[in-house]
Amino acid sequence: MQQVNDRLAHRIGKCVIRLVDGSGVAVADQEVRIRQINHSFLFGAGIFDVVPFVNQSVPQEKLTFLEEEISRFLEVFNFATLPFYWGRFEPEQGKPQTEALSRAAEWLQQKGVIVKGHPLCWHTVTAPWLLDMSNEQILRAQLSRIEREVSNFEGVIDMWDVINEVVIMPIFDKYDNGITRICKELGRIELIKQVFAVAKAANPGATLLLNDFNTTTNYEILIDGCLHAGVPIDAIGIQSHQHQGYWGREKVEEVLERFSHFGVPIHFTENTLTSGHLMPPEIEDLNDYQIAEWPSTPEYEERQAREVEEMYTILFEHPQVQAITSWSFSDHGAWLGAPAGLIRKDNGPKPSYDVLKRLITKDWHTECVMKTDGNGVALVEGFLGDYELVCQDKVSRFRLTGNDGQLDLVM
Amino acid sequence: MQQVNDRLAHRIGKCVIRLVDGSGVAVADQEVRIRQINHSFLFGAGIFDVVPFVNQSVPQEKLTFLEEEISRFLEVFNFATLPFYWGRFEPEQGKPQTEALSRAAEWLQQKGVIVKGHPLCWHTVTAPWLLDMSNEQILRAQLSRIEREVSNFEGVIDMWDVINEVVIMPIFDKYDNGITRICKELGRIELIKQVFAVAKAANPGATLLLNDFNTTTNYEILIDGCLHAGVPIDAIGIQSHQHQGYWGREKVEEVLERFSHFGVPIHFTENTLTSGHLMPPEIEDLNDYQIAEWPSTPEYEERQAREVEEMYTILFEHPQVQAITSWSFSDHGAWLGAPAGLIRKDNGPKPSYDVLKRLITKDWHTECVMKTDGNGVALVEGFLGDYELVCQDKVSRFRLTGNDGQLDLVM
Repeated sequence: MQQVNDRLAHRIGKCVIRLVDGSGVAVADQEVRIRQINHSFLFGAGIFDVVPFVNQSVPQEKLTFLEEEISRFLEVFNFATLPFYWGRFEPEQGKPQTEALSRAAEWLQQKGVIVKGHPLCWHTVTAPWLLDMSNEQILRAQLSRIEREVSNFEGVIDMWDVINEVVIMPIFDKYDNGITRICKELGRIELIKQVFAVAKAANPGATLLLNDFNTTTNYEILIDGCLHAGVPIDAIGIQSHQHQGYWGREKVEEVLERFSHFGVPIHFTENTLTSGHLMPPEIEDLNDYQIAEWPSTPEYEERQAREVEEMYTILFEHPQVQAITSWSFSDHGAWLGAPAGLIRKDNGPKPSYDVLKRLITKDWHTECVMKTDGNGVALVEGFLGDYELVCQDKVSRFRLTGNDGQLDLVM
Repeated sequence: MQQVNDRLAHRIGKCVIRLVDGSGVAVADQEVRIRQINHSFLFGAGIFDVVPFVNQSVPQEKLTFLEEEISRFLEVFNFATLPFYWGRFEPEQGKPQTEALSRAAEWLQQKGVIVKGHPLCWHTVTAPWLLDMSNEQILRAQLSRIEREVSNFEGVIDMWDVINEVVIMPIFDKYDNGITRICKELGRIELIKQVFAVAKAANPGATLLLNDFNTTTNYEILIDGCLHAGVPIDAIGIQSHQHQGYWGREKVEEVLERFSHFGVPIHFTENTLTSGHLMPPEIEDLNDYQIAEWPSTPEYEERQAREVEEMYTILFEHPQVQAITSWSFSDHGAWLGAPAGLIRKDNGPKPSYDVLKRLITKDWHTECVMKTDGNGVALVEGFLGDYELVCQDKVSRFRLTGNDGQLDLVM
């Protein structure tokens, strides 16, 4: 394989492969071509447009546009976040959009993409009809909703942002909502315990995340509290919307250091680095910044590409990080109208897209030609993930997991 | 009893007392004088000077001065905090100041004062000799220290600030110290769990506090986490050093609302309202403000008195508050040289002292004359605490706990 940075040693697997033919005879002294076809690491994006595309719920012209967008996504990424905002998923109580989301998730799954549902409990974009209920009823509805979604999607979506932004949840005061009400009454950790318990019971094999934009001591202590309370957190979700400027190496490393302390995998769940001017630093709630036009410019697109490369590299080098999601895949429909995508409004790739494509499909990707020895044995070394092996026009597959010893492959 | 504010209803007990003589005959139609001799509520101060005074470890002239200071303390207060800073209590490993502290605590106990030890674990003023140890050894030494103090003082000191300022503990970086090291390694809640477990085992009847100056969401989440982790917190300790200005009613009430949510008693453990100019708001660590002179002035003494009256009243009216400690009883030797005391450097009482004396010994105090009926019965109503009842030159005692029904008193 190509020379890789020592800091990526944890991303590399080694395996002794012994090729045999159908009768068990070693395939000796043969050329084999090895090509990585998927990563263990999750390189993701928010790609909500898959829902209207797969469900054909928009005009044909738009479908063609979305198809182009989504094919660009599939060229690079193996991980997608789909929207489960309660207020949109079930705007009228009892009429959830289960079918539309199922179709989208299954379509992605067939393309080899792992899908995560986001989020199951959040005070924003929550169901407005909760406001007519007592707190006891709200909690019951919330837990039933989680039980329903996690069960219905099992096998297609096995990863969930179970609860979102709990640090601010009970003190959020922009508007009344059912989730803030119950969080205030139950307390943060009690609510987290209950929503995780229901999700875990509904799909014990699912990967369950706690997710927050707060990266201060507050979130650290919250995680510490949850882990001591026995909450089954499979990954710590860290949002990193950097509309006000790139954190920089120092902050990225500092956040990693503080949150890796728990020994729990880390997912960068919502990463934003824009290719436009920076949002002024005095804005506290990013939602408060509303402007008519937020253009992507060539100069800022170069900056975005540099920042994306540096940040992804730092994160990929950290052994506990298992996933990075670029929150807005495209500028088209991006949150706050920001030029936050990796492609432009016209689906044209930005330099940041090219950088990620290079990193994911070249620099951090393994593809090579080698020869088996007299016993049909070859030592394979490469980035963790799924592989295709071609020898004498026959194709086989294997996986490098990092705990590989010897593998017998029948051609 | 006197008319009291409805907001103090939770501080009042009622009891039907039936007086009988030695042969069981009702003491009918007699005048009885009732006088409160102690409060259930803990009105306290930091009164470290009791240690040199009782141990006579300073020159005679100083003893006379301290005697005057301490007698002023005893006129008003029923609760004292004594210093157990590890670095001072055991400057040389294996030579703790157990005897000196025991004498001081016992002396206070004999005066009817409840004593709290402060603190058992803290990163500041901790034992410097921990720095030569491995983290495992530091933890073992810390836990042994707690076991030793809590056991040795059982029956004399049954209340402890078990661990102090944990929010900042693992990120404290002003200087290296053993406690920050182990907190960083174990995490906040794990360290809290372990120190509380040892303290509880050593004296299961003790009142154990978590104490912090941080009153933000950080501390709320930490408490939430500790309670879910089963840490036996008997009271939440809140520091309120207001060298930079009185919090004001709004913040005091807001802090009470947020921290009363847990249903755990609240102690204001370290209250400071100065009678001098305010420390500039830009100072973050109060310890950084070092000035040659910080005078107490008549104008500011009036301000201090008003603030003390308002703050104590708000706290006394809140049902979950069980203790308030004025951190510096005297300006003499006060932390940071601030005019933080209720008495001046020459032991002269400030207006704030007079205010507290009035509140504690008059406004919130019960003393009255009544008559038993034909069956020797009198209905007693008064502020919770211990009482003396005098009838026909005979003296008896009783206690109003708030859960009183009928009480037979033999004269």
